[in-house]
Amino acid sequence: MIKKYSYGTPFNTESVVKNIPQQNGEIDFFDVTKTNETMQFAANLAQSDIVYGLGQAVRGINKRGWIYESFCSDDPFHTEDKSSLYGAHNFLIIDGEQKFGVYFDFPGKMTFDIGYTDPDKLTVTPLNANLDVYIITGESCLAIVKEFRELIGKSYIPPMWAFGFQQSRWSYGNADSVRAVADGYQNAGIPLDTIYLDIDYMVDFKDFTIDDDKFPDFESFVAEMKARGIRLIPIIDAGVKIEQGYDVYEEGVANNYFCKDKDGNDFAAAVWPGLTHFPDFLNPDARKWFGAKYKKLTDMGIEGFWNDMNEPAIFYSAEGFDKAFKSVKNHSGKLTNSPWDFFELKDTFARLANSGDDYRSFYHNTGTQKVCHYDVHNLFGFNMTRSAAEGLQEAVPDKRTLLFSRASYIGMHRYAGIWTGDNHSWWGHILNQLKVMPSLNMCGFLYSGADLGGFNANCTEDLLLRWLALGVFTPLLRNHSAIGTRDQEFYRFKHKDWFANFVKFRYRLLPYLYSEFLNAVENNEMLFRPLAFDYPDDESCKTIEDQLMLGQGLMIAPVYTQNADGRNVYLPEGMTKIRLKADGTITQTDLRCGYHYIKIPLNELVFFVKHGYTVPLTEDAQNTDAMDFDINPETATFLGDGDSCDLLYEEEHPQSAEQSALVKKKRIFR
Amino acid sequence: MIKKYSYGTPFNTESVVKNIPQQNGEIDFFDVTKTNETMQFAANLAQSDIVYGLGQAVRGINKRGWIYESFCSDDPFHTEDKSSLYGAHNFLIIDGEQKFGVYFDFPGKMTFDIGYTDPDKLTVTPLNANLDVYIITGESCLAIVKEFRELIGKSYIPPMWAFGFQQSRWSYGNADSVRAVADGYQNAGIPLDTIYLDIDYMVDFKDFTIDDDKFPDFESFVAEMKARGIRLIPIIDAGVKIEQGYDVYEEGVANNYFCKDKDGNDFAAAVWPGLTHFPDFLNPDARKWFGAKYKKLTDMGIEGFWNDMNEPAIFYSAEGFDKAFKSVKNHSGKLTNSPWDFFELKDTFARLANSGDDYRSFYHNTGTQKVCHYDVHNLFGFNMTRSAAEGLQEAVPDKRTLLFSRASYIGMHRYAGIWTGDNHSWWGHILNQLKVMPSLNMCGFLYSGADLGGFNANCTEDLLLRWLALGVFTPLLRNHSAIGTRDQEFYRFKHKDWFANFVKFRYRLLPYLYSEFLNAVENNEMLFRPLAFDYPDDESCKTIEDQLMLGQGLMIAPVYTQNADGRNVYLPEGMTKIRLKADGTITQTDLRCGYHYIKIPLNELVFFVKHGYTVPLTEDAQNTDAMDFDINPETATFLGDGDSCDLLYEEEHPQSAEQSALVKKKRIFR
Repeated sequence: MIKKYSYGTPFNTESVVKNIPQQNGEIDFFDVTKTNETMQFAANLAQSDIVYGLGQAVRGINKRGWIYESFCSDDPFHTEDKSSLYGAHNFLIIDGEQKFGVYFDFPGKMTFDIGYTDPDKLTVTPLNANLDVYIITGESCLAIVKEFRELIGKSYIPPMWAFGFQQSRWSYGNADSVRAVADGYQNAGIPLDTIYLDIDYMVDFKDFTIDDDKFPDFESFVAEMKARGIRLIPIIDAGVKIEQGYDVYEEGVANNYFCKDKDGNDFAAAVWPGLTHFPDFLNPDARKWFGAKYKKLTDMGIEGFWNDMNEPAIFYSAEGFDKAFKSVKNHSGKLTNSPWDFFELKDTFARLANSGDDYRSFYHNTGTQKVCHYDVHNLFGFNMTRSAAEGLQEAVPDKRTLLFSRASYIGMHRYAGIWTGDNHSWWGHILNQLKVMPSLNMCGFLYSGADLGGFNANCTEDLLLRWLALGVFTPLLRNHSAIGTRDQEFYRFKHKDWFANFVKFRYRLLPYLYSEFLNAVENNEMLFRPLAFDYPDDESCKTIEDQLMLGQGLMIAPVYTQNADGRNVYLPEGMTKIRLKADGTITQTDLRCGYHYIKIPLNELVFFVKHGYTVPLTEDAQNTDAMDFDINPETATFLGDGDSCDLLYEEEHPQSAEQSALVKKKRIFR
Repeated sequence: MIKKYSYGTPFNTESVVKNIPQQNGEIDFFDVTKTNETMQFAANLAQSDIVYGLGQAVRGINKRGWIYESFCSDDPFHTEDKSSLYGAHNFLIIDGEQKFGVYFDFPGKMTFDIGYTDPDKLTVTPLNANLDVYIITGESCLAIVKEFRELIGKSYIPPMWAFGFQQSRWSYGNADSVRAVADGYQNAGIPLDTIYLDIDYMVDFKDFTIDDDKFPDFESFVAEMKARGIRLIPIIDAGVKIEQGYDVYEEGVANNYFCKDKDGNDFAAAVWPGLTHFPDFLNPDARKWFGAKYKKLTDMGIEGFWNDMNEPAIFYSAEGFDKAFKSVKNHSGKLTNSPWDFFELKDTFARLANSGDDYRSFYHNTGTQKVCHYDVHNLFGFNMTRSAAEGLQEAVPDKRTLLFSRASYIGMHRYAGIWTGDNHSWWGHILNQLKVMPSLNMCGFLYSGADLGGFNANCTEDLLLRWLALGVFTPLLRNHSAIGTRDQEFYRFKHKDWFANFVKFRYRLLPYLYSEFLNAVENNEMLFRPLAFDYPDDESCKTIEDQLMLGQGLMIAPVYTQNADGRNVYLPEGMTKIRLKADGTITQTDLRCGYHYIKIPLNELVFFVKHGYTVPLTEDAQNTDAMDFDINPETATFLGDGDSCDLLYEEEHPQSAEQSALVKKKRIFR
């Protein structure tokens, strides 16, 4: 059951699709303190209560013991002490004697003190007192999630090929280097479906331009790659370069499509292209205009995009730079004896990035109201991506396109996926990815994944292999790394055959994985679930944060520590252990419920199938275009001990999620 | 057996105390590539080889899969991608079919590529071709460590009270705030032995000064605190403030005791006091002079010190600042369209810290030779601390003093302990501490510990409790945190009684812990050992990196993940599980060998005693001065199933480690 409470004058975020009548009276579960300007929601936590939620955030599946802030942030250091990442997902479940979900539909900064100040207290503080709050009750965590997901609408479905393996790097600088990557994978016998174009494919980082020097005859190049089964996925950034003669800039200025400063001038801030303007994505006309630009690239054969820098990230504003430079220049240049003076000087420019002052200094015009960016900050990336999705639906109405974003807010899940941003080549970030998947699923973000192998810092072969052993199960499976770091395409490493074996397994699993994804979309299920969601009466499951249930019949428990030869795994019931050996053969062993130390050498993949379930594996191929998705019981491999399985599929790939009634079911008997 | 190989003209680091004859011919185990200027040692690694060592370093107990650099570094972000921390400890053990230890006695930068570039190759590259290499063979890892420890000499022994609980913060700014901390602990019934004085106790950060405004009549204050059983431990930094009239500065200048730049002027670089000179700790006269200064504080009743900033850390050099400021000032002040230009500008001042250019620009005079600092960088902290230790022996010859350092090199372990520097309030750093302890022990650093609760970032109650559950077993047990972070004295949190219970347990364990420490010193044993060292034939032990053997009879397996209710533990043999409950009572349960999921609530302490061993617990007290260290079998609690135990102790506390033949043994029958 859902109850809606409104306070003040909420901004309509469009995150919710169902019309819930507004309650009068006091909200359940929370003590509310309210003044004109501020309010706070407080609840006591019993010692055994678990708090789930918050989508993309640091720390565990159980969010207790930290203070989080919903404020979309471009921060590449995803360490435990951070409070904000790229997304803002204000949904929580409190699971204890009292069990309920709560969604704070609020587009500004919001603080969640979940047992940080007082270990037994939850305190939620929005920036101001205008918001909608939804209280969701249900018999189980899964029932609460399902009810919430109905409230916020069906999740985005990408094309089938977006489940193939994807390779990215900042940046493959020209057509030949892209060809070399395709060759590298082909020669190593490692399947590959896409190659990404990071910011350097553009002319001076201008959205919707292509540098002809690097990519002469881009349209032919797209076709050439597609003929090899490889789709190119260009990046689109949020900022539009200020440059006379650049059509996007000129149209934006002419039509007042950009965010304005307090004086009504187009707000200027620097990102990759130097000074830019930000399209006013909260303005429906601007949204339609920007979204229509993607057609330039789809007309050249492009079928997928990633939207970046849309928190929006700001390196500095024109005004901020000016102040900082003056402050440094006016410095005496004499050494003071105070270290703090020096630190002040040292940080003058560094402090310019993503500053609250800048976010407070520009405005949106929604068509019906002018609103300060700071108050609706968390809607920017959402609406950039909505703009793209709506533009793509116009441009290529007959097929699904790949689209994912860095910044997000709940509601964006109907339009696109997300990736989890600029992580590091740290072993700890394998586990971070595992822990964030169910939290994202709760909020509707089903198509998601992390930069495999880590974006920042240097990767090692063993890290990449172990990460891939998790990645083969995530919808978005993309290897991505930053400029200046070690090359981390799989074929760069010593044991190419080990990588090939894992990736081929992913392709063999695709019909099942895609089916489970469609099932999660159609029925508002979570693709990844904490064990405690499936086994709520099993006390042992409540604290397990390094294993997940996947789809209806799988459990995964990847290795995430260096130089390990296996790991401890808890089986809440008897299951079949599946072991993919280095030679590609698969063994299946029944294991009883309980704790097991499972040996998992670096070149093997181990996971578990629940009794009564069957997972069919088809034949692998160099890419999804070359695959036969029909399971042929004569040639398929069946995992688990069930005698049949139901696979969902789409006969056509409609663009619109609303049309996904086209999803069909086929029963496969082994 | 130890073999010594010399190349070129090695600098005498004085890390080794035994005279080993030099071998002719080629070194065992390694392929050596050598030119006049450079050399490289390369060895193949079998897939099952484990590489131990490197003392203070990031990552696991098994060092495979990363590239490390020995170069003492002031870097507060101890993340997996770093290559250097504060210490330089060039000792490795390769444990496989071939089993050997190797010590590269080399004071400059040295790179250890342990399966980073090629997973099956170890490559060691010193900065130049002048070094001694010791190859140590033995039947077991423990035998190799023992042989190595004999080579480098007996470890430092602190006073008994240094094993009590210690409280620190940057900074307790005056006498009253120190009193408040003492009161806080006393009122909460939590034992406490020391309170630390961080940099703000000095006048303008000048070594060996005391700010009378903050600490009027310091000598009386020291006595007042000592009467409460609390010793004050002041910090001493490496840099001496440049200030006319400041005696340490003036004496250093007059006697040429400071490091010189290329022109023979005293080298000037800024740290906390602003511009400073660095004492030339490689010069015996300067060392003696600086070490004698500690007497000023011991004469006022101080019995312990921590030496900091002695990598040496440099915020900026006078020359570097000048260049940077000119470069910024000459910048047009115009925004360029290149983000890279902006990053360059932004980082101009940040890049000044700890720069290689600065380390290359100053010189030591050892009395017999002039040497560039860069070439002997890793000896600076070692010799600052040796200076202090030798000074303290002169000043207070009749008792042991507490001394530990941030930077270190092997050899310094004879003079002092170390703490592991500016860590973070991250759960991952509990495990980091656990993993670094045996590696430090291999290199002779027995008295060591991490900043409990984390130095940087904000701590939570649960993090601090779990960390303390490891800390109760480490010789140095100090809660320390940085300016600007949340207060993290135990009494600041909700469940003071839980902290009190753990700390009291530590005090009850002290006679045993101190005895085990003395045993490790006397017999060149490791206090903390990987399980594989004690059970070399047990395959399961080889990859366990979150449990340790402690002393002769204990195994520890602390919880290091948030919101966990326990953890998986492997018992290589049957052991007694000891459970300290929240009410202070202790239960003992026999467990069979194998894997166990052990429930460990946040307010309980669990560890294991090997069969046949006995651990006596004495009565706790508010501090060590108030304790009776004699075990009274009538009132003691005995853990484990042995019928007696041997305790080592000292009747007097001599300052010199050479006198530790005074260590005596007493057999306790239960």
